[in-house]
Amino acid sequence: MEIVIENPERIDVQVSSSRYSLDLVKFFKPQHSKSALLILNQKITIPDIFRNLWKNYNVHVCADGGANRLYEYFETDAERCEFLPDYIVGDLDSIKKEIFDFYTAKKVIIIKQSSQYATDFMKSKDLISLHFHSSAFREKIKTSTGDNHGIEQEEGILQLYKSERASWETDDIYLLALNAIDGRFDQTVHSITQLYTTARTDSYFRLCYVTPTDLIFLVPNGGTTITYSAAFRDDCIGNCGLLPLGGPTVIKRTEGLKWDVENWPTSVVDGKVSSSNRFVGRTCCYIDVLDPIVVNVELLFEHLRDYL
Amino acid sequence: MEIVIENPERIDVQVSSSRYSLDLVKFFKPQHSKSALLILNQKITIPDIFRNLWKNYNVHVCADGGANRLYEYFETDAERCEFLPDYIVGDLDSIKKEIFDFYTAKKVIIIKQSSQYATDFMKSKDLISLHFHSSAFREKIKTSTGDNHGIEQEEGILQLYKSERASWETDDIYLLALNAIDGRFDQTVHSITQLYTTARTDSYFRLCYVTPTDLIFLVPNGGTTITYSAAFRDDCIGNCGLLPLGGPTVIKRTEGLKWDVENWPTSVVDGKVSSSNRFVGRTCCYIDVLDPIVVNVELLFEHLRDYL
Repeated sequence: MEIVIENPERIDVQVSSSRYSLDLVKFFKPQHSKSALLILNQKITIPDIFRNLWKNYNVHVCADGGANRLYEYFETDAERCEFLPDYIVGDLDSIKKEIFDFYTAKKVIIIKQSSQYATDFMKSKDLISLHFHSSAFREKIKTSTGDNHGIEQEEGILQLYKSERASWETDDIYLLALNAIDGRFDQTVHSITQLYTTARTDSYFRLCYVTPTDLIFLVPNGGTTITYSAAFRDDCIGNCGLLPLGGPTVIKRTEGLKWDVENWPTSVVDGKVSSSNRFVGRTCCYIDVLDPIVVNVELLFEHLRDYL
Repeated sequence: MEIVIENPERIDVQVSSSRYSLDLVKFFKPQHSKSALLILNQKITIPDIFRNLWKNYNVHVCADGGANRLYEYFETDAERCEFLPDYIVGDLDSIKKEIFDFYTAKKVIIIKQSSQYATDFMKSKDLISLHFHSSAFREKIKTSTGDNHGIEQEEGILQLYKSERASWETDDIYLLALNAIDGRFDQTVHSITQLYTTARTDSYFRLCYVTPTDLIFLVPNGGTTITYSAAFRDDCIGNCGLLPLGGPTVIKRTEGLKWDVENWPTSVVDGKVSSSNRFVGRTCCYIDVLDPIVVNVELLFEHLRDYL
């Protein structure tokens, strides 16, 4: 039976067992050797936390024109040199000549991948997989004196990824992408598809997007506990939504939302989507869905920087 | 059999028959007695065309805090008086006191609807339906001296809508909403649900969203011809996407896209979505889908104003 319960503004939630857990603060502060910040090609619009976020991530990748956005974010070359990306990757049809030259002079690794069968986002993701999993790849980058750092220009990264993928241990990699959601709407939807496909093919990624308003991630099927400190909840989190963008599904049970549901069919087509909801569990909430579902959590940026 | 064809940059498209047609220019310039511009509660960020767009629409509605955004868009009261909305509607928990007072003094019709079972967007849509279809509603608004213009405060508009809906003739109403897509992501998805539900329950609406980057609308199942002038195509249209946000479906046939497809399964979950595509049909293109699909068309605003 379909149930909706309206909760008080704060409740204690006890989760006895859950298949998966997500710590919201870790998306901003992974404190983890495997973490990558990916900058896509839209204007960087989270100024209050950008520098701290950068410093909390180990590896920094610009997807093609993302390099323009990083460069243009700073006013002086001194600042730009403090925030050099580790890699720039893509078909390189968007990066500006002078910015290409600037980062080349600073010894940033710039890898051209011409293939039109993958987006710059997908190329960046495969590069990050290689960086963390493949010592052969890192060695090649370090030692190659050839063109394109020894990487075949059409789809060398994809080929390396494919040849090695099966052998990798699957330690988590925290991957936070900026500018994935706020540009052209077909690119927004492409980013949403990447949440679903990445969970299936490269489940070692803990992938999320930060936008000027939200944190966005995928909650897999089976029970998921989302944790945070009580103070972080109070200071930094606004509304949330459970968004069935992969197609109609059922929210089997939630605990710790303002409007908790049980056996609740949800569908974009039917206009039945849990939006303008919010977390009321003091330090966690629990979401059990039949199929993976996109979740957005509104961020109150004016307080967020205190947690980075 | 699944087919993808890469076309030249411009081709002639001849559509022999289509169930439905959409003229892109009419979304901006409906030249139609039944047309409404709806302003939702996000910053208005299409400055180049806002004033012209306003003048091309007959009725202007602010959804609650949308009134703040309209007010704040202008610098002087003289300008504000030139762009007075016809209605402000919603639970009125977002409109600022001084802005409420300003528009009240200017005799703008402000209707409170407290119900939490509908969003301000849905309330606005029902109001617009009543405005164009119900002479009883318009008469009540004009003559009532009571509170809330004679409309019951909880959900009077919905009740009136329900009581009259069956009797309406279904002339098209052009409805363009601003700020539907660019705010909190659960609100973006709510706006997407409204494309699907409106097409089902109030198919007389020709509903679309204009964002700082895109025009977004629903293409119904069955064949749809999208028309435009050759000049408009060249000057104002960038990329496009066919976005199966209601769930997996099949694009049966397209004609006039850079990458035309036939019998092409499309799915967010599978990461198979036609994005970064574009219209190459000189004056039209044709899209036939098994289920309704969201389409975005990138707008080149610097030229768009010349067409308004």
